[in-house]
Amino acid sequence: MKKLPAEEIEPLCSEIRSFLVEHLSKTGGHLASNLGIVELSVALHRVYDTATDRLVFDVGHQCYTHKLVTGRREGFDRLRQYGGISGFPKPYEAVDDAFIAGHASNSVSVALGMAKARTLKKENYDVVALIGDGALTGGLSYEGLTGAAASGEPMVVVLNDNNMSIDRNVGGMANMLQHMRIRPGYISFKRWYRDAIRNLPGFYRFTHRVKEWLKSRLLPENVFSAMGWEYIGPVDGHDEKTLETVLRWAKDEQKPVLVHILTQKGKGCDFAEARPELYHGVGPFDPETGELKPSGPCFSERFGQKLCELAGKEPGIVAVTAAMASGTGLDQFAERFPDRFVDAGIAEGHATAMVAGMAKQGLIPVFAVYSSFLQRGYDMLIHDVALQGLHAVFCVDRAGLVGSDGETHHGIFDVDYLRSVPGMTIFCPASFAELDKMLDQAIFHTAGPVAIRYPRGGEGRYQDCADGDELVVKPGRDLTILCYGTMVNEVMEAAERLEEKGISPEIIKVNRIGEQPYQQTLRSLSKTGRFLAAEEACHAGCLGETILALAVERRIPVRGGRLLNLGDGIVAHGSREELMRDHGIDAAAIVRAAGELCGK
Amino acid sequence: MKKLPAEEIEPLCSEIRSFLVEHLSKTGGHLASNLGIVELSVALHRVYDTATDRLVFDVGHQCYTHKLVTGRREGFDRLRQYGGISGFPKPYEAVDDAFIAGHASNSVSVALGMAKARTLKKENYDVVALIGDGALTGGLSYEGLTGAAASGEPMVVVLNDNNMSIDRNVGGMANMLQHMRIRPGYISFKRWYRDAIRNLPGFYRFTHRVKEWLKSRLLPENVFSAMGWEYIGPVDGHDEKTLETVLRWAKDEQKPVLVHILTQKGKGCDFAEARPELYHGVGPFDPETGELKPSGPCFSERFGQKLCELAGKEPGIVAVTAAMASGTGLDQFAERFPDRFVDAGIAEGHATAMVAGMAKQGLIPVFAVYSSFLQRGYDMLIHDVALQGLHAVFCVDRAGLVGSDGETHHGIFDVDYLRSVPGMTIFCPASFAELDKMLDQAIFHTAGPVAIRYPRGGEGRYQDCADGDELVVKPGRDLTILCYGTMVNEVMEAAERLEEKGISPEIIKVNRIGEQPYQQTLRSLSKTGRFLAAEEACHAGCLGETILALAVERRIPVRGGRLLNLGDGIVAHGSREELMRDHGIDAAAIVRAAGELCGK
Repeated sequence: MKKLPAEEIEPLCSEIRSFLVEHLSKTGGHLASNLGIVELSVALHRVYDTATDRLVFDVGHQCYTHKLVTGRREGFDRLRQYGGISGFPKPYEAVDDAFIAGHASNSVSVALGMAKARTLKKENYDVVALIGDGALTGGLSYEGLTGAAASGEPMVVVLNDNNMSIDRNVGGMANMLQHMRIRPGYISFKRWYRDAIRNLPGFYRFTHRVKEWLKSRLLPENVFSAMGWEYIGPVDGHDEKTLETVLRWAKDEQKPVLVHILTQKGKGCDFAEARPELYHGVGPFDPETGELKPSGPCFSERFGQKLCELAGKEPGIVAVTAAMASGTGLDQFAERFPDRFVDAGIAEGHATAMVAGMAKQGLIPVFAVYSSFLQRGYDMLIHDVALQGLHAVFCVDRAGLVGSDGETHHGIFDVDYLRSVPGMTIFCPASFAELDKMLDQAIFHTAGPVAIRYPRGGEGRYQDCADGDELVVKPGRDLTILCYGTMVNEVMEAAERLEEKGISPEIIKVNRIGEQPYQQTLRSLSKTGRFLAAEEACHAGCLGETILALAVERRIPVRGGRLLNLGDGIVAHGSREELMRDHGIDAAAIVRAAGELCGK
Repeated sequence: MKKLPAEEIEPLCSEIRSFLVEHLSKTGGHLASNLGIVELSVALHRVYDTATDRLVFDVGHQCYTHKLVTGRREGFDRLRQYGGISGFPKPYEAVDDAFIAGHASNSVSVALGMAKARTLKKENYDVVALIGDGALTGGLSYEGLTGAAASGEPMVVVLNDNNMSIDRNVGGMANMLQHMRIRPGYISFKRWYRDAIRNLPGFYRFTHRVKEWLKSRLLPENVFSAMGWEYIGPVDGHDEKTLETVLRWAKDEQKPVLVHILTQKGKGCDFAEARPELYHGVGPFDPETGELKPSGPCFSERFGQKLCELAGKEPGIVAVTAAMASGTGLDQFAERFPDRFVDAGIAEGHATAMVAGMAKQGLIPVFAVYSSFLQRGYDMLIHDVALQGLHAVFCVDRAGLVGSDGETHHGIFDVDYLRSVPGMTIFCPASFAELDKMLDQAIFHTAGPVAIRYPRGGEGRYQDCADGDELVVKPGRDLTILCYGTMVNEVMEAAERLEEKGISPEIIKVNRIGEQPYQQTLRSLSKTGRFLAAEEACHAGCLGETILALAVERRIPVRGGRLLNLGDGIVAHGSREELMRDHGIDAAAIVRAAGELCGK
């Protein structure tokens, strides 16, 4: 890579783009963002050695070229598939992946920690954080940027500015970047100045004042330089040669340097350039036309439809997203009710606190957010919403296993963390009809904080609409199987197989987790005396433990119990089916565990 | 208040200061910050009507003057005491308290939500957020500020800049504010300009260009104006008259306005002015000399001592705080090992991600943080630290009930949220000797993420040093009582009373919560057949549930079980003893519950 003659760079970049479009058209993946930073990735690899230097990706879905040039070309046939390479940086895949990525805005903090370690241990490598402008909407990046600037640790932040997060960028930072983009370039001046200084070292002190004066003319303060960063930019992100020059220069500075680079999402692929938000993360598509395979109806879409319907009747309903309007199904709402729609940026903590303020003053805020990203709002859920018992609705999308995005994206902690939020009610729809009904219940007939958790994708064989907090889906006599949400589909399948084996399970589906007596479940347990809980959630704080503890407290004799769940919560990428099988929570595993419990 | 003649303001402020010093000298409380904003509070109350306008405090410990002038003067005799008024804003106390406060940096987000509600509901009131410069180090405030600026919602942010958080302020934002403080005042120009424009409305368009030109000369861009705020300041925060003028003006602007006000922490009280960090939050003191009543040895102090000892031997140890160096006992460390000490500002998420970067590159980071503030780092604990199994140490101070700070500060959720962090080990020392030993174990003999949780204050009658993961503190035959940490003291007292009643409890103290078989506990349960768990933690995710579920899974017959804990986790202020009594987890409650379990 480093030895490649300059004239071969452009053909290489074209080749990489073709490779990406061709492969992703089969496997799916993050298309537009990866096409946007081909030149930047190549330049980074020509300047740095990622085996020793630490390149920290932010979010990380833009790491494909990096993976390609670090020996993982073959892996792209099974990108994001079970046992194949991940779509995100993973240190377990290659030493070149410096750190995990998946959630936004952490890269500068991580890089600062690494730079500090390098300096304290007197080691000799460079640290680079690669962050997009979307991730700058997250306050964590601001904490990292202010902290790193103040530390003076030599490190480089590469700001990949494509004026997008997944949806169009919002907020004050976007405004600030906009200003920077249009101001005159001054890089050529700086380069001239630095070269001049190099050749006349004795003049440094004399020229320092001149420099300061020139700087005040040519380099207007921006937010980064005000923080203490040496700011370089903006630089054309598709001019590989200039990128290399600028990166080498930034590397040499040996202080906190921020390089501002302008790129175009989807670059070099007409349909991705035209609609970068559509081609952000995609399934398989036609590599010529970009035509996407249609996907079936999903919970997110259904949620968006139902919320529009309810909002048409109740003017107090406001919808909030954290840069995920389309992902959470809110695009239609945003169009129909623009005044009542707020995109908070990648800022789940802010969104949660804002929603609390709205609720306190009489609105009914509905914050639609992915389960694993709401982890960022945990403190605000407790502090801002729950301690005052405010009525705010959290529509927790991507609850449970999300499939190919893997470890960082599975929504398997929310059952635990939401249960600890004082007074929180958690609705668990298993069908579209239940989602409709529970959304109505949550908005109009529930006090205090309330969450509705539903998975990625659509409904399964269970398409009923339950009444009440618990539901006997199927009566039985030998053991009680507890579940909630779409896990009911696995349990129903398991029950059929168990019946064939002569075991009669009673299926209890919990529709509402929260302060409730679980009478139906306990009644079932009194009858069967055996208990199995099947949960698409981590072990800690799982509902099965609560039920077993309640049974003991109520002195209900239980002859045996088994908790099937996702254990410590580290689950790789793959299809939902593969992951459920691997972690022993699919129908087959339920059948096995139930058989053991019943001594068969 | 509003009708008070101008000449009576200064005497009023003096009177308020005397009142505060006199009363706080008896009750304790937040002294220095409240003395700093007497004039500002008075000005706010003369410009706004807090019964309808919404004044949102950030952190909120600076609300004393506000409480004084809104009918709670009598309450100061029992400030922060059980049943008395809180030291923080509480809507349940008065309609003038617009929102809860306690954690930092949320006020702008909350205020934005309120402003949005006001506008959508076509109501007519003003919204003001009052935030300190310390809270600006938190990224949440940046998310709020960028979001509010972009929204254009009429609202005012009052930045109370005293160049301090609890300890001296750190980071890039502090640098930026420093620049603003020293640049020339231009308020008089702006006032003149606005008055001129008012009198010559027709000239507006003509003068607009002049204004822009003048602005570029006189009003250099700062980070706030770049975001889109109308920036006014800096203003002398002890000149009540000017404050009123500026606030009225900001109110009239009907857009997002940020008023930057300079105040002095401790103002008007010589000893508090001299050492504002010492007089930030205090117990009773001598009102003449400021002499503080000496407090006994505490876990924080002991932690700091031990960490210094270990750091002297192991150069890889780095200590991190989030603006709480003295509170967490790290001052000595900061002095002895300045290169290995990082104050991340009020930015627990950033600190957690940074610590992950440090751990990845071979340091042994120790992040000392209050339990309720680490809630802000929940996502980073999972995403940045745990998914890669990084070895970072979290010293979770103020775990359990904290007493007079109340709802927002109790550390009663960490047992739950830490348990859901993959691979997390949680040590629970009950004595200083155990803290020493477990810190050593955590740093040198534990893999992956590890937490040590210890309470505010000092040790009790239990002063032993346990070996192993579980400890039989006292053998018995009638029931098993489970506890961890300093709760063992209550349990030991209860056990003595139970023995007097002829009930023989076996006390099991768990020293390490995490993936472990709890063999000792289950063995005890097999013997006694009755179980009681006493936990200074919320119900969700409590250890007692896990043990009872395990017992059922292992088919250990249990004749009865009781879980004593803090329920939904909403616990007011008061002494630890009063709160434990109220929530039924003190020795008396344990005796009662054990008696019931044993049928006596």
